[in-house]
Amino acid sequence: MSKRVTPRSEDYAKWYTDVVLKAQLADYGPVRGTMVIRPYGYAIWEAIKAAYDLRFKETGHENAYFPLFIPKSYMSREAQHVEGFAKECAVVTHTRLRATEDGSGVEVDPDSKLDEELIIRPTSETVIWSLYKQWINSYRDLPILINQWVNIVRWEMRTRLFLRTTEFLWQEGHTAHATKDEAVAETLKMIEVYRQVAEDELALPVIVGLKSEAEKFAGAEETWCIEAMMGDKRALQSGTSHYLGQNFAKAFDVTFRNEANEEQYVYATSWGVSTRLIGAVIMAHGDDQGLRLPPNIAPIQAVIVPIYKDDSRDEVLGATKELASLLEATGARIKLDDRDTVSPGFKFNEWEMKGVPVRIELGPRDLKQSTVMVARRDTGEKLSFSNDQIVSRLPELLTEIQSGLYKQARDFREANTYSPGNWDEFKELMNTGGFARCGWDGDPLTEAAIKNETKATVRCILDEQEPAGIKCIHSGKPARYLVIFAKAY
Amino acid sequence: MSKRVTPRSEDYAKWYTDVVLKAQLADYGPVRGTMVIRPYGYAIWEAIKAAYDLRFKETGHENAYFPLFIPKSYMSREAQHVEGFAKECAVVTHTRLRATEDGSGVEVDPDSKLDEELIIRPTSETVIWSLYKQWINSYRDLPILINQWVNIVRWEMRTRLFLRTTEFLWQEGHTAHATKDEAVAETLKMIEVYRQVAEDELALPVIVGLKSEAEKFAGAEETWCIEAMMGDKRALQSGTSHYLGQNFAKAFDVTFRNEANEEQYVYATSWGVSTRLIGAVIMAHGDDQGLRLPPNIAPIQAVIVPIYKDDSRDEVLGATKELASLLEATGARIKLDDRDTVSPGFKFNEWEMKGVPVRIELGPRDLKQSTVMVARRDTGEKLSFSNDQIVSRLPELLTEIQSGLYKQARDFREANTYSPGNWDEFKELMNTGGFARCGWDGDPLTEAAIKNETKATVRCILDEQEPAGIKCIHSGKPARYLVIFAKAY
Repeated sequence: MSKRVTPRSEDYAKWYTDVVLKAQLADYGPVRGTMVIRPYGYAIWEAIKAAYDLRFKETGHENAYFPLFIPKSYMSREAQHVEGFAKECAVVTHTRLRATEDGSGVEVDPDSKLDEELIIRPTSETVIWSLYKQWINSYRDLPILINQWVNIVRWEMRTRLFLRTTEFLWQEGHTAHATKDEAVAETLKMIEVYRQVAEDELALPVIVGLKSEAEKFAGAEETWCIEAMMGDKRALQSGTSHYLGQNFAKAFDVTFRNEANEEQYVYATSWGVSTRLIGAVIMAHGDDQGLRLPPNIAPIQAVIVPIYKDDSRDEVLGATKELASLLEATGARIKLDDRDTVSPGFKFNEWEMKGVPVRIELGPRDLKQSTVMVARRDTGEKLSFSNDQIVSRLPELLTEIQSGLYKQARDFREANTYSPGNWDEFKELMNTGGFARCGWDGDPLTEAAIKNETKATVRCILDEQEPAGIKCIHSGKPARYLVIFAKAY
Repeated sequence: MSKRVTPRSEDYAKWYTDVVLKAQLADYGPVRGTMVIRPYGYAIWEAIKAAYDLRFKETGHENAYFPLFIPKSYMSREAQHVEGFAKECAVVTHTRLRATEDGSGVEVDPDSKLDEELIIRPTSETVIWSLYKQWINSYRDLPILINQWVNIVRWEMRTRLFLRTTEFLWQEGHTAHATKDEAVAETLKMIEVYRQVAEDELALPVIVGLKSEAEKFAGAEETWCIEAMMGDKRALQSGTSHYLGQNFAKAFDVTFRNEANEEQYVYATSWGVSTRLIGAVIMAHGDDQGLRLPPNIAPIQAVIVPIYKDDSRDEVLGATKELASLLEATGARIKLDDRDTVSPGFKFNEWEMKGVPVRIELGPRDLKQSTVMVARRDTGEKLSFSNDQIVSRLPELLTEIQSGLYKQARDFREANTYSPGNWDEFKELMNTGGFARCGWDGDPLTEAAIKNETKATVRCILDEQEPAGIKCIHSGKPARYLVIFAKAY
């Protein structure tokens, strides 16, 4: 495997896969469409998870764990829901293997066939609401604010590492409320939490909006989303929060007695972000040298590379060790790469590929001058610092890189967001790439026609109010909504 | 549902299930044998997980994620392994549902049948070693020290919440080494990590030892275990660490070039603890009032219960709020139970059931005297403290309760561990309950005969050396090993 990745300009999809594999973020599992998240990729996921989990707990949510298996019959209780998921369900039908007669291997034991087949959760509304039915009797039992971090299976046909895999990791919040107002407020609160963590921790600028009927979650009344622009100007849906109304409460007959002792159906929300966010980080920030990680979620924030010949080895290594402990004491995540088996140049490339925000080089000359050479991964800039300076400057440097990456991504999105004046301009834009901010008449047929002609979809509705004086980009009728159209992952 | 649990003396199994359900640790899932871990139970799991995860990372391990699905053919590559797991495998055979003809529900779409069936991981050696084959070429790629926190499925016939469920949560470490010595050292290092966390954090005294051939992991050369005594004097296997030799390396053809450029098979270990540990905590410490949680893993370490009538409500609530923030500032996990809807007596019972280590009561009289009443969950003791004292005393009190619970459990185990002098005494002991520390001739037939007559099994071999002058408790032949026999979960 060559050291370098395919340039983005040559083949963006190939660049993406190259980065995932060469930065050792993930690998292909033995079953088609499955993914192995390697330690470096998983450490990024742990950082993302910790950031979200903290906010979930701060907003009053608790974690729990619901079973992987859903009885087949549960899936069809909510009509839209089963419609949305039936075509991608992994189904468990048997519970035993036995040796083949010729002893060469194993086969499924036909006697172990289940009476009712089990679906591996593609999402957990159905199994969770079957439990909420048991837990909810009175308004005193509400709200229920539960989240779970679990694996999910959706038998997708076209898969790509992190972006769309048959199994992925996510969190799914499932809340139950006494009133519609409270449930709607929860839906909005959580999309705001998603926005904050995406922007503050992942340095990922996002647009918050509402999904169209065609794009909303199967079983939801309304789906809110955060949408981000990737390096190829396509959109990536990065998180969704659903107001489910009473749909699942009715499907699973979940009622409660309110303070006036009247029996009512419960209101629901659900919301999720997944390992897809790692794909978003790769594509929003990566360049032709590989990953560029925002310091807040970087497993290693600064790597120290000692540069020495045989006669200076001990001295240089000693100095880098000392520096590493001084920098660790600032709270930063530091790696001293003291491998003897590879050259400094090899190390530079490797840590660039892995997107480490700051590289610190220390050689015999630096040692004499009590300086270090610092390279920023975001700008490529090289700076010389005294030993004292780097210790006090590192936290600031990391903050600068964090906000620098955010600003670069936001500027890129702004520079590639247009308000096309007519249908020809719109089509041209969808060919060259970018977000179109324009009017839509709200008709699903218009949406389908636009998708058919350009592959672009409504990424999100920017405002539920009808915009004044704006026309639909396709039909020319008065626009019902101001929306973002784009090609999407 | 009554407020009280079945007394342990009346029906220990029923007491256990009562505690699990009434303390809201877990509930039954819709599919037979599955479990829902409720927020309070999951918070305990998060604390256990954090304690182990810290130690794993301190000992150089990294987390990753490998797929849920294992191709059926992988399962039969290692002969003992498939023998051990074939009878309890959930098998995925199809990937789509479709509407039934009458439109009443859904059925499995026969056209979606997979060419090769998929097994849901009962443990991940096979899928992980198929990846290690790709990642390992040279001694420079070793060791690999990877762990994952995941869900596991084993289709068990007789299930009990936390102790044995068809799906459970666990961690599994899988390491690859260049030499046997290194792999054996890793196996021992991890069983020691298991012991430390069990004893220091879960207050669970454990015996470290080796499994007999009959009880070892399917595919291991040697299985080390930690065994604990439960409140009914039965043993619970609480964690295992396996030296796998070159078995999986050979099954998946994983070789490396050593420094002398010779091709060799890789050596392996694997090790795991699971949500079963929550069952261990319940049964090692619980009493007829419910759970008793060790402070180090208690989601709530101290609960404050305000006691007031209408005229003192505001004043008392104000004082408890102030106290709560002072106590939180000590780093303790504090809950102020200010519910208006239930009585103080109800709250006392509820928090006793949930095993909160310390209860702090504050009423109008305490307010006048600037005191609080403190109840210890471990001893039942009630103490009066001044407001200042409780803030400085709480951390000590929690430490005392942590070590007190450990000591109680260890004393109980010591008091119920015997060295029976002959076979009749052994049988009598297995009837009344307890651990038998005695000689075994090492013959699997003897082991089987003992199990057959008494239901007791070799829990662990205490020393691999042959003990001098000790006879086998059953055969009367010279003992090969000194072991612990007991009935087990």
